[in-house]
Amino acid sequence: MNTAETIGSLGENASLKRTIARLNPASHTLVGPGDDSAVIASPDGRFVVTTDTMIEGHDFRLDWSSGYDLGWKAVATNIADVAAMGAVPTALVVAVSAPATTEIAWLEAFADGLRAACEHLAPGCGVVGGDLAASAQIMISVAAHGSLEGRAPVLRSGAQVGDVVAVAGTLGRAAAGLALLESGNRDAIAAYDALVDAQRRPHPPIASGVEAAVAGATAMLDLSDGLAKDAARIAKASEVTIQLDRLQLQGFEAVLEEAARAIEAQEFEWVIGGGEDHSLLATFPANVTIPRAFKPIGLVLPVGHAPVMLGANPMPEHGWDSVRG
Amino acid sequence: MNTAETIGSLGENASLKRTIARLNPASHTLVGPGDDSAVIASPDGRFVVTTDTMIEGHDFRLDWSSGYDLGWKAVATNIADVAAMGAVPTALVVAVSAPATTEIAWLEAFADGLRAACEHLAPGCGVVGGDLAASAQIMISVAAHGSLEGRAPVLRSGAQVGDVVAVAGTLGRAAAGLALLESGNRDAIAAYDALVDAQRRPHPPIASGVEAAVAGATAMLDLSDGLAKDAARIAKASEVTIQLDRLQLQGFEAVLEEAARAIEAQEFEWVIGGGEDHSLLATFPANVTIPRAFKPIGLVLPVGHAPVMLGANPMPEHGWDSVRG
Repeated sequence: MNTAETIGSLGENASLKRTIARLNPASHTLVGPGDDSAVIASPDGRFVVTTDTMIEGHDFRLDWSSGYDLGWKAVATNIADVAAMGAVPTALVVAVSAPATTEIAWLEAFADGLRAACEHLAPGCGVVGGDLAASAQIMISVAAHGSLEGRAPVLRSGAQVGDVVAVAGTLGRAAAGLALLESGNRDAIAAYDALVDAQRRPHPPIASGVEAAVAGATAMLDLSDGLAKDAARIAKASEVTIQLDRLQLQGFEAVLEEAARAIEAQEFEWVIGGGEDHSLLATFPANVTIPRAFKPIGLVLPVGHAPVMLGANPMPEHGWDSVRG
Repeated sequence: MNTAETIGSLGENASLKRTIARLNPASHTLVGPGDDSAVIASPDGRFVVTTDTMIEGHDFRLDWSSGYDLGWKAVATNIADVAAMGAVPTALVVAVSAPATTEIAWLEAFADGLRAACEHLAPGCGVVGGDLAASAQIMISVAAHGSLEGRAPVLRSGAQVGDVVAVAGTLGRAAAGLALLESGNRDAIAAYDALVDAQRRPHPPIASGVEAAVAGATAMLDLSDGLAKDAARIAKASEVTIQLDRLQLQGFEAVLEEAARAIEAQEFEWVIGGGEDHSLLATFPANVTIPRAFKPIGLVLPVGHAPVMLGANPMPEHGWDSVRG
């Protein structure tokens, strides 16, 4: 007999209460959870805001990711969009819907994942409000907020001809992890568990967003849909062509080679087409000192035949569409 | 043969593009949709934020509500939570997930509803970001933001013994509309279409939130789950008892009497137990001039046997639980 408490048996208020109790306070909070709205400090008179949703069966599978993993990932993916503006993540609101039969232990683990990701990736940032509802699939929708601390936001549209293109964080690791899970190859999954973990709990280089802004980055975004597709976004918004250097990508390929061989995949596809690492892609004027976390991988050229070139050849637009998959 | 364009056939980017083109600009926007995050002005160095989700089959039915209705309602329900802090709604982010087979025309109508509600209920407020994903059910998750313009937020916890309890907006109309729809009684639905419209497209008194704050309201919330349940929230947060006056509620009952008779329902149940009007319930010191939009309906007493009394009798907690229904 299953007597586990569920969010349906506890109801919305009691379930939320048990969840909120596990969260960390956010340092910018003036009024926290429990009222109609939260009140958050935005010292320079502006705030940045972004939203992203993860849906069961489409963005994640419950047999591959725990509640903790999903809480972590919901934070990581959203605050990467804040960091990509050159902002410091400050506050999140989290809407979760789940079947009424979902055990409260799952929701508590989810809250633990929210907390851990905030504490590890963006200390001072926290969940300041939320919503819980019933649905057939689990759906997690987050809105993330940040502070520019008086700096100009770093947009996608500012890349200049002659800029250096650089990336902070990993490329293709989350895609490799997903391919390993999809392969069903238990030996390979066990052997390359660090890649699987990168899929379950990505570690975007959040602090590098501010570093890039301070160093003078002209454009930036977070790599959510793959290098080829996301580089094309900067290229189109800035009306330039981005030329990637295959040689400079080799380091990213090398660390994935063995795992790719184990499941007969192509590591280069992961590096250029794989999303979900949520690394930061930025462009810097040639004369600035690029922050150490960023590795140069290409150059900004005048607008040409294709938004993105790999050396001398146009790069096809790989990547993920959130509706079509 | 059905050749209607769907969000699946168009893909995420094209679908979002067509939707965003129909939205109104928000006056506080510094950077709008299209980058990793939006940037919003918060002139007094603070912002309020709240989130709420609507789920097909649980919070709405597609045969009862159009895309336009749902866009309107998503805005109205969320900005009511902003108004309930005494703030002016400024910016929304909207996450929608829907089956890939959903026609783009539905999403465009949804965007039209978002726009209309912003323009009618909170001019200057607009959608500054969004997300579109695929799911089995339609799910709409909104985060709404507002500006306190230098004022202190009006919390649920500030009600003082001796305060007057007052409501701005309607009571029970949305619940009456829902009951009419559920009755399946076509004649009654046609005869009382204004009530059905209140369910589909609620008109919360958004501007009255600021009026209440300026007048010196000590506590406020928006009535989303019914007067009895929501009044108890103020009572518990403020450690007082709220005494409602049945006589002062009679005006709200009177306008629902005929509709209730038509479908053999109890109008008083709608008035005290019905949510979704998103009217504002506030408490005011006895010596202040209560804004004209607010109608007195009770008094704040020292904490007693029950959080809410109806005259001399404890009020049972009616209302809606978003997980259990």
